[in-house]
Amino acid sequence: MNGKRVENVLDNPNTRTVVEANKASYEWALDPKYRDIMTCYSPLVAENVNRYTYVSASTEDLAAKARAGTFTSEMLGTCIYRCVGYDASHALASTTWEMDQTLGTEYHKRFIDYLKMVQTKDLSVAGALTEPRGSRKMKTLDWPDPYLALKIVERRPDGIVVRGAKINISGAFASHELIVLPQSSHAEGEEDYAVAFATPSDAEGITYICQYSPYSAERDQAEDIYELGNPVFGQRETAMVVFDNVFVPWKRVFHCGEVKYSGKIVGRFAKTHRMTCGGTCKVGFMNQIIGACKLVQEYKGLDKVPHINEQITEMVVLRETGRACGMAAATLGSEDPPGSGVFLPDEVMGNVAKLNICNAFWRTMTLAGDIGGGLIVTMPSLKELKNPETKDFVQEFLSFGSDEPTANIMKVHKLLQHWTAGQHGVGTWHGAGPVMAQKIMLQRVVKFDHEKELVKRALKLEEKEPKSGD
Amino acid sequence: MNGKRVENVLDNPNTRTVVEANKASYEWALDPKYRDIMTCYSPLVAENVNRYTYVSASTEDLAAKARAGTFTSEMLGTCIYRCVGYDASHALASTTWEMDQTLGTEYHKRFIDYLKMVQTKDLSVAGALTEPRGSRKMKTLDWPDPYLALKIVERRPDGIVVRGAKINISGAFASHELIVLPQSSHAEGEEDYAVAFATPSDAEGITYICQYSPYSAERDQAEDIYELGNPVFGQRETAMVVFDNVFVPWKRVFHCGEVKYSGKIVGRFAKTHRMTCGGTCKVGFMNQIIGACKLVQEYKGLDKVPHINEQITEMVVLRETGRACGMAAATLGSEDPPGSGVFLPDEVMGNVAKLNICNAFWRTMTLAGDIGGGLIVTMPSLKELKNPETKDFVQEFLSFGSDEPTANIMKVHKLLQHWTAGQHGVGTWHGAGPVMAQKIMLQRVVKFDHEKELVKRALKLEEKEPKSGD
Amino acid sequence: MNGKRVENVLDNPNTRTVVEANKASYEWALDPKYRDIMTCYSPLVAENVNRYTYVSASTEDLAAKARAGTFTSEMLGTCIYRCVGYDASHALASTTWEMDQTLGTEYHKRFIDYLKMVQTKDLSVAGALTEPRGSRKMKTLDWPDPYLALKIVERRPDGIVVRGAKINISGAFASHELIVLPQSSHAEGEEDYAVAFATPSDAEGITYICQYSPYSAERDQAEDIYELGNPVFGQRETAMVVFDNVFVPWKRVFHCGEVKYSGKIVGRFAKTHRMTCGGTCKVGFMNQIIGACKLVQEYKGLDKVPHINEQITEMVVLRETGRACGMAAATLGSEDPPGSGVFLPDEVMGNVAKLNICNAFWRTMTLAGDIGGGLIVTMPSLKELKNPETKDFVQEFLSFGSDEPTANIMKVHKLLQHWTAGQHGVGTWHGAGPVMAQKIMLQRVVKFDHEKELVKRALKLEEKEPKSGD
Amino acid sequence: MNGKRVENVLDNPNTRTVVEANKASYEWALDPKYRDIMTCYSPLVAENVNRYTYVSASTEDLAAKARAGTFTSEMLGTCIYRCVGYDASHALASTTWEMDQTLGTEYHKRFIDYLKMVQTKDLSVAGALTEPRGSRKMKTLDWPDPYLALKIVERRPDGIVVRGAKINISGAFASHELIVLPQSSHAEGEEDYAVAFATPSDAEGITYICQYSPYSAERDQAEDIYELGNPVFGQRETAMVVFDNVFVPWKRVFHCGEVKYSGKIVGRFAKTHRMTCGGTCKVGFMNQIIGACKLVQEYKGLDKVPHINEQITEMVVLRETGRACGMAAATLGSEDPPGSGVFLPDEVMGNVAKLNICNAFWRTMTLAGDIGGGLIVTMPSLKELKNPETKDFVQEFLSFGSDEPTANIMKVHKLLQHWTAGQHGVGTWHGAGPVMAQKIMLQRVVKFDHEKELVKRALKLEEKEPKSGD
Repeated sequence: MNGKRVENVLDNPNTRTVVEANKASYEWALDPKYRDIMTCYSPLVAENVNRYTYVSASTEDLAAKARAGTFTSEMLGTCIYRCVGYDASHALASTTWEMDQTLGTEYHKRFIDYLKMVQTKDLSVAGALTEPRGSRKMKTLDWPDPYLALKIVERRPDGIVVRGAKINISGAFASHELIVLPQSSHAEGEEDYAVAFATPSDAEGITYICQYSPYSAERDQAEDIYELGNPVFGQRETAMVVFDNVFVPWKRVFHCGEVKYSGKIVGRFAKTHRMTCGGTCKVGFMNQIIGACKLVQEYKGLDKVPHINEQITEMVVLRETGRACGMAAATLGSEDPPGSGVFLPDEVMGNVAKLNICNAFWRTMTLAGDIGGGLIVTMPSLKELKNPETKDFVQEFLSFGSDEPTANIMKVHKLLQHWTAGQHGVGTWHGAGPVMAQKIMLQRVVKFDHEKELVKRALKLEEKEPKSGD
Repeated sequence: MNGKRVENVLDNPNTRTVVEANKASYEWALDPKYRDIMTCYSPLVAENVNRYTYVSASTEDLAAKARAGTFTSEMLGTCIYRCVGYDASHALASTTWEMDQTLGTEYHKRFIDYLKMVQTKDLSVAGALTEPRGSRKMKTLDWPDPYLALKIVERRPDGIVVRGAKINISGAFASHELIVLPQSSHAEGEEDYAVAFATPSDAEGITYICQYSPYSAERDQAEDIYELGNPVFGQRETAMVVFDNVFVPWKRVFHCGEVKYSGKIVGRFAKTHRMTCGGTCKVGFMNQIIGACKLVQEYKGLDKVPHINEQITEMVVLRETGRACGMAAATLGSEDPPGSGVFLPDEVMGNVAKLNICNAFWRTMTLAGDIGGGLIVTMPSLKELKNPETKDFVQEFLSFGSDEPTANIMKVHKLLQHWTAGQHGVGTWHGAGPVMAQKIMLQRVVKFDHEKELVKRALKLEEKEPKSGD
Repeated sequence: MNGKRVENVLDNPNTRTVVEANKASYEWALDPKYRDIMTCYSPLVAENVNRYTYVSASTEDLAAKARAGTFTSEMLGTCIYRCVGYDASHALASTTWEMDQTLGTEYHKRFIDYLKMVQTKDLSVAGALTEPRGSRKMKTLDWPDPYLALKIVERRPDGIVVRGAKINISGAFASHELIVLPQSSHAEGEEDYAVAFATPSDAEGITYICQYSPYSAERDQAEDIYELGNPVFGQRETAMVVFDNVFVPWKRVFHCGEVKYSGKIVGRFAKTHRMTCGGTCKVGFMNQIIGACKLVQEYKGLDKVPHINEQITEMVVLRETGRACGMAAATLGSEDPPGSGVFLPDEVMGNVAKLNICNAFWRTMTLAGDIGGGLIVTMPSLKELKNPETKDFVQEFLSFGSDEPTANIMKVHKLLQHWTAGQHGVGTWHGAGPVMAQKIMLQRVVKFDHEKELVKRALKLEEKEPKSGD
Repeated sequence: MNGKRVENVLDNPNTRTVVEANKASYEWALDPKYRDIMTCYSPLVAENVNRYTYVSASTEDLAAKARAGTFTSEMLGTCIYRCVGYDASHALASTTWEMDQTLGTEYHKRFIDYLKMVQTKDLSVAGALTEPRGSRKMKTLDWPDPYLALKIVERRPDGIVVRGAKINISGAFASHELIVLPQSSHAEGEEDYAVAFATPSDAEGITYICQYSPYSAERDQAEDIYELGNPVFGQRETAMVVFDNVFVPWKRVFHCGEVKYSGKIVGRFAKTHRMTCGGTCKVGFMNQIIGACKLVQEYKGLDKVPHINEQITEMVVLRETGRACGMAAATLGSEDPPGSGVFLPDEVMGNVAKLNICNAFWRTMTLAGDIGGGLIVTMPSLKELKNPETKDFVQEFLSFGSDEPTANIMKVHKLLQHWTAGQHGVGTWHGAGPVMAQKIMLQRVVKFDHEKELVKRALKLEEKEPKSGD
């Protein structure tokens, strides 16, 4: 990170935030107040497990998954770092079952064994798909550098060796395990790219090249995390994960060369993860934003101003629309493929949820930025409250005349800075794929026969036949 | 209508469309294909009844109600004219029960007797709320003309006499019965306005002054209804309903002077009806629009054009968002008030559904208007296909070179004219109240304590206390 | 029209509206109040002429052209029917000059002679471009029916004979003259489609197949035009213009086979007309809409309601944005091609103007529809005010308690019906080409070297060179 | 800054960026390539001066002012820090003239003397308006702390003493001079708040409490400014400016107690500055963003992808709309008040420009964020290119298979991070006041008589008279 090796993820203030978020997901599972949200019974191991290690077996499970997602995100104000692994497990449980049925492989058995191990040891699992990729004008096999997508470089008796990189990967360096999926469907000839597996996150040959943003720098230099906009849990921390000839034993390989199934894995992951990103975690994030806006309103004496209340209402509408699409994706979910025992969200609603939230989140940032005011971006450091030359001035002039402690006022603006003047717009857009990915998927799956039939019947259209004279 | 008395609603081509829509709702109830959608078992009368006469007793009922709404609207391409009555029954079943519990009245018993009669006789019931009202700057009691809201003018031993008018009322003249609710909450002193009742739609003293739009004129002069954009079922037909000293017997009076409960009746109607308008019938309408756009694409050879497919996808997203909000309103619905046995949709989601669809429908019109092209508004009459001077030209030049019969092409454009160049934008906006009504309701019901608490916890805000020096 | 021959354009209530609009354009030119707007000095004939017959020779002329467009449209509330001819004259004056310079033709001379005749006789000139066209998947020469674009069928010593049709043509049947341009650029082999000419609008072989919309039917059956939303000038009247072997003498042919120049004619017309449609006439239309909304506000006592005032402000912003883009298109206009003496608007700004107004007009309809209320679509006929059975009720209940004559209130709502519940959304979108046409043109003309250079300089990017190891 | 005193604005990497931006404005004035943009002839001192010290005397001057604003912002990619002072000079030149005319004061003379000094010495001048203010529910005189707006605390023979603070002030600490205006109009009794003056920016009693954002921290820890998104000129640097009993001699006081004129100063500043912010500098910023998006397209081989080209076109439309509104504000500008010799932009267009750009800029961020991809927020530090453990991986995997140097690719993404994942959305919104300020101003100045008259004439509305029976 930032050009230097991180010796200890707990000591580095930025990597530590991921540990803290992960840690919270364990604490809540033990907390009687939140246990019902964060755990559920797993028949696989015949005991209660952390929900983030569980594969949904009903639409009720999908709805519970959505509620857990909203809960964790509103508590953290950042990524829980476990949902990609969670959603990848859904995709693998489903598709390994289908491969075994069709091809006579034993991937599903392997995956279930792996899942049992994860549940029993209560491990946190990250997931990785996105790849650098070469020029969008070329096919994969024509790239000069074949490693711009993760590639099997050797098939050995005891396992495979892979080389390549995954980019934009959230929190993997502080998870126990990492599930790796292909990024895209593959054609014949691309067998070496059709690969899915699990690996300990510290396996030999893996290097994490961490993101370094202005927010990373700010945390690095902070004297007290409570100067920051999301003190404990920070911004979303990602890394490029380089696999430089990493060995994976066969028992952790869940897809290897069956090119027809790469697309299914990706598609099932995508619809699950789009429900998560679109209908779940952003709903929780919006709760923090809305709460901060209400506090600012109170501090400044703006709580009766109609246009501000209307803006907050607009945020509520955007939030509830996200929630509704997430709920619908769960309610309309189904066993996929039939017989597999794995329930996945509805494809259309999952994509609709994500597509809506992309725009909704930027709009929420716009509205919250309006309410928070210029101070969101122009505020001095909270350190000024301890600076003898400035503290009285800051106390006086940033109080807005309210009797709220000025530190509180500044902190709430700092939280709004975190949400509206940083990485969340772009991040929300691209997590689970940008809007074009959702549009393409919708174009692929939505059919129109019913709609055309309605029109034909309403208008009593004649059947097509050659026109006179033609 | 149009300055003249309509002697027979079946002979007048415009009023007839309402009869046709109502008739379809009876036919489907008998059709094995659609019976499950259109009927359900009513414990009140211990037999299957038309769903539009039934009050929901579970969230599953609410979901089934939503599906029926979408089905009827996509089949009709216009209002079914029974949902206002349907939703008004929900509001009355709920609030009469509460009044009886609290005030010791017997409104609920009366209403249930009425509902049994409706179910047994299989009657169609319209509903009426909206009133002309006086200057928005004055309170009701200060209006020079007290009848701008419906008012009790006499309380007699056998019933009440009311005077006033309801405006924008869909299809009442061709329904058997009419349920009348107050339009707004009422304050003390306004007891004469706090009134709800049912009446046969042809009671003495009732006059229907029908709308007359360009579309009415077009239907009046059509030689063949298949020249028109929605041949059988037409545009939504409404009327101003004047009550000029109409007598209502006590057994049909369900609310009379209890001003505290007027607002509850209105509010419960509104949330039910907003789910209907926002998450149900527009979804069906959009199906017709999308179907027509797909057909135009095919006729013109545009089926592979990316920006048009993207526009259709956008319509799909708008439609599914509406459906999701409707589903969420049903799923989150609850018994209201507890103990009443009446299930109503979730207030927030009902309002969100309606608010979203207002904008979504205008946007759908914009997109469909783009795809349909200028011909939507410039097309000649379908009569030209029988005009010897022009028919060959029209056949040739409006074929777009496709082998589809030109009449079909013109009819599909005519259907798009019906949807995009007529009354649907404004109508959708105002049905169940304009967006401001939804925003106001949301401001009233949404609380923010949870959201503020999240922020306070995340930032460890200090409790407010006087600042040093204050 | 409507399947029957129109014997006299003055007697038919729909065709008459075009005559009225044309007539107004002559009246204003004589009216001292409006003369400066509607006329200007033409060096060609050395006298003042109607501005709609004049080709701009400076950016000031272009600005005056914009002001005239806004003036005529706000006075008419519909198309003036002369601007397509006006803009086509700009395209021809420019491109005939260029052809003569390059090819040694004499088209420019012919066109100037024609223009002098038009100015001297003070004729009104319509214009025509849009064609039915065949499947968008085929090239022109592959269409089974070659006449889906206008085609030269014979070249004779005295002139040419053309066959085909133009669609969506505004008001041509009531103009003196008609200028015909190609719709698109043409490639080699398509010489017979590369044709531009002028013809008297009643030339032999021309048939007008008029549009017939709900609004046409309404006007047909009106007893008094003041029952209608735009009493005198009506909706935009268009027709499909069929050219069934129409002869055009050489002196009226301005382009004939020079395929390289078809695209230039179209492009120059488009940029001129997009400034007109985007920055000129819709600004005037919006003035009528805004005025009606203000009146409704007053009638209903809503003039102090914040959200309505904010909506009207939004309409003002949309209107002024349109005006600004129109002004910028004029200000940045230039002599095109240099030396021709013809000034055309800026390509980018012309397209931006049109693209913005497409969305702005739908949005204005949405906002005005909100303010006008449900009555816009549910109002009864103004004939009810003379119907003894209903007139007292209508007087009472549609007064909104104001002392404004009820007829006025109804008429203003009728005008809003004309604007928000009819053909204007789709019409505005497609006039001068739908938004995709503007986007394509912008993609063609906007270059990005300057922008890329800025970034390279700011970041001191290294020149591209092979990477080490490549 | 950040809790510590900045000893030298040139040594501190953040404050230095302001000096660099200011410095550039001097360099360009000397550069023959840019001299025409950056300088103009001032009759006051009879020589060429930096345009940023000049008060417009014609609409051509206003147009040149707009061009200079776009030029400087596209070159800097941040604030030039001189436009608030520039626009404040316009407001003071105009209003001091009016005060002198009406009240017989000598403010104008003083101000012109000051301006001559500024021009002669070629000083850079910042400006300051925004104040902390107390509860929005209270009037100024009721605030417990009277200094939440800047207040005169003493009137002495030689000048005045003021106390208070200005917030969100761009770059003042590195300007020579600071012009201070009131933030709002004032009522009788508020004379001590009705004050405008100029002061050296380092006058005794002035303290700058600088903003400290994540971007500040990032610059603090950078080893090489070319690791950063805007290497030389950085993010906009602002400060809270505390005036703790600052003395201002009378010759620098331009408004003192004339409460009727405070609002005029603010209003004239606002319309000038809104043209600047809405139609000028954001246009330049967008050029950088568009340029970066085009480069990313090329690096990734996406230059032919239709939806990305459409997104870039949308940015172009937003940019040109901003430019058009700015041009219109200049073109429609006028001498205000008449006789003063000072030309100010058109009020309506200035506000429209700013209002449009607020939304346009967020939308541009959204679009650019889509094109740049997740890497915008997840990219590692450019330091990794020098880190032996990671540099080969970064070279390989962030090349996207292109032959562009990876450092270039990363730098362009870093520039997009600067624009889309930082302070620009909120900053653009609030600079020159948030959208509500523009809406309020438009509601104040736009009249509707003309529009209502158009409707009355078109419909031949009767004059209002009592209805029969009233």
